Amino acid sequence: MPTISHKATVMPESPIRKLVPFAEAAKSKGRTVYHLNIGQPDIASPTSALNAIKNIDLKVIEYSHSAGFEGYRNKLAKYYQVNNIDVTGDDILITTGGSEALLFGLMTTCDPNDEVIIPEPFYANYNGFATSAGLNVIPVSSSIEKGFALPPIEEIENSITAKTKAIVICNPGNPTGYVYSKEELLKLRDIVKKHDLFLFADEVYREFCYDGAKPTSVMELDGISQNVLMIDSVSKRYSMCGARIGALVSKNKSVMAAALKFGQARLSPPTVDQIAAEAALDTPKSYFDDVQKEYVERRNIMVNGLNRIPGVFCPMPKGAFYCVAKFPVDNAEKFCQWLLEEFEYNGQTVMMAPANGFYSSKGLGLQEARIAYVLKKDSLLNAVEVLKQALLVYPGALEQSVNSYSEN
Amino acid sequence: MPTISHKATVMPESPIRKLVPFAEAAKSKGRTVYHLNIGQPDIASPTSALNAIKNIDLKVIEYSHSAGFEGYRNKLAKYYQVNNIDVTGDDILITTGGSEALLFGLMTTCDPNDEVIIPEPFYANYNGFATSAGLNVIPVSSSIEKGFALPPIEEIENSITAKTKAIVICNPGNPTGYVYSKEELLKLRDIVKKHDLFLFADEVYREFCYDGAKPTSVMELDGISQNVLMIDSVSKRYSMCGARIGALVSKNKSVMAAALKFGQARLSPPTVDQIAAEAALDTPKSYFDDVQKEYVERRNIMVNGLNRIPGVFCPMPKGAFYCVAKFPVDNAEKFCQWLLEEFEYNGQTVMMAPANGFYSSKGLGLQEARIAYVLKKDSLLNAVEVLKQALLVYPGALEQSVNSYSEN
Repeated sequence: MPTISHKATVMPESPIRKLVPFAEAAKSKGRTVYHLNIGQPDIASPTSALNAIKNIDLKVIEYSHSAGFEGYRNKLAKYYQVNNIDVTGDDILITTGGSEALLFGLMTTCDPNDEVIIPEPFYANYNGFATSAGLNVIPVSSSIEKGFALPPIEEIENSITAKTKAIVICNPGNPTGYVYSKEELLKLRDIVKKHDLFLFADEVYREFCYDGAKPTSVMELDGISQNVLMIDSVSKRYSMCGARIGALVSKNKSVMAAALKFGQARLSPPTVDQIAAEAALDTPKSYFDDVQKEYVERRNIMVNGLNRIPGVFCPMPKGAFYCVAKFPVDNAEKFCQWLLEEFEYNGQTVMMAPANGFYSSKGLGLQEARIAYVLKKDSLLNAVEVLKQALLVYPGALEQSVNSYSEN
Repeated sequence: MPTISHKATVMPESPIRKLVPFAEAAKSKGRTVYHLNIGQPDIASPTSALNAIKNIDLKVIEYSHSAGFEGYRNKLAKYYQVNNIDVTGDDILITTGGSEALLFGLMTTCDPNDEVIIPEPFYANYNGFATSAGLNVIPVSSSIEKGFALPPIEEIENSITAKTKAIVICNPGNPTGYVYSKEELLKLRDIVKKHDLFLFADEVYREFCYDGAKPTSVMELDGISQNVLMIDSVSKRYSMCGARIGALVSKNKSVMAAALKFGQARLSPPTVDQIAAEAALDTPKSYFDDVQKEYVERRNIMVNGLNRIPGVFCPMPKGAFYCVAKFPVDNAEKFCQWLLEEFEYNGQTVMMAPANGFYSSKGLGLQEARIAYVLKKDSLLNAVEVLKQALLVYPGALEQSVNSYSEN
């Protein structure tokens, strides 16, 4: 029997999905599992998108252009223009999810063994894409104690070597919910310019900023238009994760021409989903106002609830719909698995994503878990109570220290 | 300005799509362009699939399982069982098109610089996937004169080195339309077993076999169940190219577990399209009977028509909906471009895919083009006439030899 590749052996399992079999087992025992592990919102997809699917008028579900339908690209460009991002449809490659956009971008700009600097914790699947492309992730660590702010600029600069090709950020951040300030981005801009690196920004959570936080796109930064690649997706914006429609956006013509070759190899992004994504662009502002309001309430329930549990600490995020919390446990991955395998409280338990999978540095985040506050408020209240009860009986619980957190 | 990667520089353009700008220019001049370049059938998608989309009952377009919906996988397994392929839903990973299935399969089994043997001409995008995965394609050449039969087994065996990890075939074949006999597959089986290689078979054209030809799946071959990976897709079978739903199928548990990690990184295949693909499995046999009859007629019009043009030679394919024809021209790529840029006959011209992009060996296929006979019969008759007229005036036309072809 031939052996699988080294690449496949080292390919990381998704920390978001690796505990799925334990969740399935818990459900088969009749338990309610609150899925805080995955950014799958329960928010309804926009009516315009759902109607576009129901009213589909195709006899043949044909390929689209490899870069996506021109009409969709042009309309998407208008959405960006409204958001201070000065692009045309030619600067956009429609991809099969933001995932494909990042993979195409990385393969277009980096060769195997090149280095990519990423502030950690970062969206765990970046590890998977880096492994697929044969790249080395060089993490610069941000800490839960400092609320996951951008690490000091000197630290980032010290990580740059002759092999460094790019810096990747996620803003607003998954898993931290951190929103980079304009000042932080300008500092990054200066490094990128000085060392002539590519700068990737995963901006799929653009519409999810709270407490007056303003998202700044890397596309708005002066002087580095040829260095910047922006990753986008309809998944979170319109609660259409299953549509698998994303975009790679850049003003760099060489990058876009090369990325299109990767796009041609896979032929086209899905057709019906592009039609739905184009229709979603008609979503009225009131939809986002409602969604934002809902997420702020959910965030407050979850984060304040977590911080009220003795020994738990969770910074208040300003964006996205995730938070990373530190638990008074021996090991968060064990705790997460134990919650699914061993624990129940009134027939309920909680699934979280162990945060160590969101760090590239071994040994970091071992007491942390990522929580997606994407469920209804009642469910979140129940989930907080489950976690509180669980920590009272978890065999690996540590002695609880005083919680210094003040509520938001 | 930072430079793009070496990988992106050497990434091949799709020979199927690279002439698209010339076709667009021809259309903007008001010319009718017969698209014989791409396997985008005009056959209607099954009613069951279209209705499943129109009747979609989702409030949120959610992710599916990374391996695809369990219900779809189990129902797809039943389809395979009917086709003599003994698998369960657990042996199936639903992918975003057959493209992704092949890429996941290659990355799962091969490391960068490993070698993959592929009989050429082969589906051009295999080059793209091999480049993405950093692999070296080692071609073994089949020839138009021998109707693209499997090259002699000794030739394949002579190509095996310590770096060879897999053999990839496409059966029925794109671009040749060749259907491998059971005997040919058994010879391949013996090599695969002897050298403990992986054997990939792209079987997306399974339902398109003519003149009594029977497709044999590599999954049916005894003794190599752990070596075999089958690539499938709904694109051609149900004329749903734009659905982007494929499958990676293997009985090798290590392969499937590793491939799932690549699947987890990209989260899931598209949701609505999976629902449509599942519904497509209800397509009655009469649909395929009608489609087969139609394709046989189209094939006969195209291939007989081509062979009637002095100096043109095209073997009669037994499967898929492509043929490769040899033209009496200096260079088929120049000829294809000239057709779009310079030529018209009664306001019409033809787009073909130059076949050199389907060979890995430089210098092969320079007079050949791939033709997809996926248009209505009237259009195909017109296209043949356009090609006949074009060869009378093409500046690079060679002196025509006698055509020894007999009709089918």
